[in-house]
Amino acid sequence: MIKMIAIYQTPEDAEAFLTHYRDVHVPLVKKVPGLLRAEVTKINRTMIGDNAPFLIAEMYFADKESFSAAMKSPENAAAGQDLMTFAKGRVTLVQGEILDA
Amino acid sequence: MIKMIAIYQTPEDAEAFLTHYRDVHVPLVKKVPGLLRAEVTKINRTMIGDNAPFLIAEMYFADKESFSAAMKSPENAAAGQDLMTFAKGRVTLVQGEILDA
Repeated sequence: MIKMIAIYQTPEDAEAFLTHYRDVHVPLVKKVPGLLRAEVTKINRTMIGDNAPFLIAEMYFADKESFSAAMKSPENAAAGQDLMTFAKGRVTLVQGEILDA
Repeated sequence: MIKMIAIYQTPEDAEAFLTHYRDVHVPLVKKVPGLLRAEVTKINRTMIGDNAPFLIAEMYFADKESFSAAMKSPENAAAGQDLMTFAKGRVTLVQGEILDA
């Protein structure tokens, strides 16, 4: 299983961020072909360390092939363009794989 | 659903980190009462931004009450003590809740 994870830093306007995120960004992300599931976690509290994120979004893909195809899709381009309108300079986007643990 | 997320920075010795993590830390975490599920993602690639983590671990709890009870348990204290032996200064631990998305 391949996972794409978006780690958002605290925005200037949390309410505006969350509204745009929910009403505009999530619907665009859900159109990306091959996306199996998305899970969004709003961080409430830091227990250890600093630089705690504001929000973490995880997008699941079956394998490297479907992830790669998803990244090349026009739907992903649209989601990426939207991302830059509300999170430019405040998001780290990574790809990883789930370990057996 | 309550989620505790550990965000690990790149260790000095990745192989030693992963061995300790898998063989010692995960078994301790799995003993924490109330833990429903854990999911560990090894980051392979940065797509946007910087400060990409090395590893992200997510621990799921049913609700605030079971999370709170888990945090007070001796099993959690043992896992926390172990955490400090291999990730002190290199881990951010946060608590959040999953949004409907």
